[in-house]
Amino acid sequence: MALFSIGVDLGGTNFRAAAIGQDGTLLDKISGSTNSAGGREAIVDSLVNAVVALRDRRTGDQLAGTGIAVPGFIVIEEGRVLVSPNLPALDNFRARDAFQDRLKAPVILENDANAAALGEKWMGAGRDVNDLILLTLGTGIGGGIICDGKVVHGYLGMAAELGHITVDLNGTPCGCGNTGCLEKHASATAVATMARHLSLGDNLTSEDVYKLATRGNAGAKRVFECRGQALGIGLATYIQVFNFPLYLLSGGPLAAWDLFSPAMFREIERRSFNYRACQGIKPTRVEKALLGGDAGLFGAAYLPFQAMGSGA
Amino acid sequence: MALFSIGVDLGGTNFRAAAIGQDGTLLDKISGSTNSAGGREAIVDSLVNAVVALRDRRTGDQLAGTGIAVPGFIVIEEGRVLVSPNLPALDNFRARDAFQDRLKAPVILENDANAAALGEKWMGAGRDVNDLILLTLGTGIGGGIICDGKVVHGYLGMAAELGHITVDLNGTPCGCGNTGCLEKHASATAVATMARHLSLGDNLTSEDVYKLATRGNAGAKRVFECRGQALGIGLATYIQVFNFPLYLLSGGPLAAWDLFSPAMFREIERRSFNYRACQGIKPTRVEKALLGGDAGLFGAAYLPFQAMGSGA
Repeated sequence: MALFSIGVDLGGTNFRAAAIGQDGTLLDKISGSTNSAGGREAIVDSLVNAVVALRDRRTGDQLAGTGIAVPGFIVIEEGRVLVSPNLPALDNFRARDAFQDRLKAPVILENDANAAALGEKWMGAGRDVNDLILLTLGTGIGGGIICDGKVVHGYLGMAAELGHITVDLNGTPCGCGNTGCLEKHASATAVATMARHLSLGDNLTSEDVYKLATRGNAGAKRVFECRGQALGIGLATYIQVFNFPLYLLSGGPLAAWDLFSPAMFREIERRSFNYRACQGIKPTRVEKALLGGDAGLFGAAYLPFQAMGSGA
Repeated sequence: MALFSIGVDLGGTNFRAAAIGQDGTLLDKISGSTNSAGGREAIVDSLVNAVVALRDRRTGDQLAGTGIAVPGFIVIEEGRVLVSPNLPALDNFRARDAFQDRLKAPVILENDANAAALGEKWMGAGRDVNDLILLTLGTGIGGGIICDGKVVHGYLGMAAELGHITVDLNGTPCGCGNTGCLEKHASATAVATMARHLSLGDNLTSEDVYKLATRGNAGAKRVFECRGQALGIGLATYIQVFNFPLYLLSGGPLAAWDLFSPAMFREIERRSFNYRACQGIKPTRVEKALLGGDAGLFGAAYLPFQAMGSGA
């Protein structure tokens, strides 16, 4: 009888769920619509049906529990979704208890970016370390902090707002109320905005800007240098503060790694004496994450193992 | 038979040592010269003599161990001082083993700012929390991070370089290689430098600028607003990243709290949505530390208790 857990990665429109073994083997996978238009009940139904299906297909094996990665703020102790901008039906919802009542089995909630960081630690680029930071790049920038093998939550579950730190005192205004947030200078949205400022074309997406840059367009190349600089300032701060061995980046924008990473590393070297001091001893690693879109799924599945104290 | 430990706070010219009970009672105290001109051996002699004297005065009680707060980078696992700018005689010195050989009893080294943060957690302003950040203001800015009751060291002992993060992209050049470090915009040295920029007087110290400001000098008041703004940017970053319940400031510059803290809190509120979001639930505290110059002594003394797992 093998032990497995079920991880669920809940998105605004779709979800994915997987049965994963204690050694990290992906055993089975389901995906479907979140049915968010139907409200809380429909969302819960969708996930419960998927979890039950995965469980019933593994008769003879033992389920350690279910972990669910949710896009939003989670009050961990209460298993309550505080705010979920992409799934407002879940705002202020004690989702853990609702799932447990239906599944009659332990459920653990986690923020999706935190779960992705934990997934990378368990089965991805962070397998050989206990401390890492993951920056998730997309239309926004988020992330997760793993310290001593565990997610850092903060006292109200709001830790690791890694995209909303100031990298430019008087930079671009951000919806969060700040000016010069890392997100506003380094996300995919920021790339498109910078291209607009440079009049590189009408309605360009970040992918369009990427294509322009690979074809040698100087303005487009400069846009990615600006992203690299902003990322470097943010990462230098994290390296100075944490001195962790590993900083990972994930998300679609990594396709442009060769365009932005030289400026990023230049800025890190200049702004972080920790980074420079460690180079002669044991270099600090700043790398691409490995699990891609599966990181949250693995992290969610790891939660029940971690709670048992058996998955480390 | 009562259990006690000995804490030592080692400075560039003087040291202080204290016998402290398991409940945090200060039992006995010694201070003296570091004798750093005499090199490693003289420094070790000074401290060993003080520790032996404190121990011998408590016959009948049991010594849990000795903790030593050292100004510099410590490779914790090895008990090795990597670099100590204020005590270069200790550079690359396996000080823990040297002390243990002489004392025939357990010794634990810790960075002085980390020890101060731990001291505040044990017996100071952080007694009721498990997670806090301490910013130590002086001619420079340093600090310590306590996560889950323990010092965050980073993989090479360089964590919590809290004064050397970028708060102004193109700000004042810093000796660390960066431009716009928090330290360069908010330390006592920064206050004196800003006063010079404003031609407020010749060779003014930060205390002189403070006196000018309290007498209503507009330029001097503006200097403290600038410090408050820089501190606010840095603290907003820490609050976004950690979501810890408590951020403490310590050091002589706290005398000017009323002059710089309004600008500091204004900046924190504007730049940290975590800070604003928590205000309606359980406010994030940004406060003065309580133990003053004794924080490192208490933190050092706590280390042996913590190692025994009996002091929490």
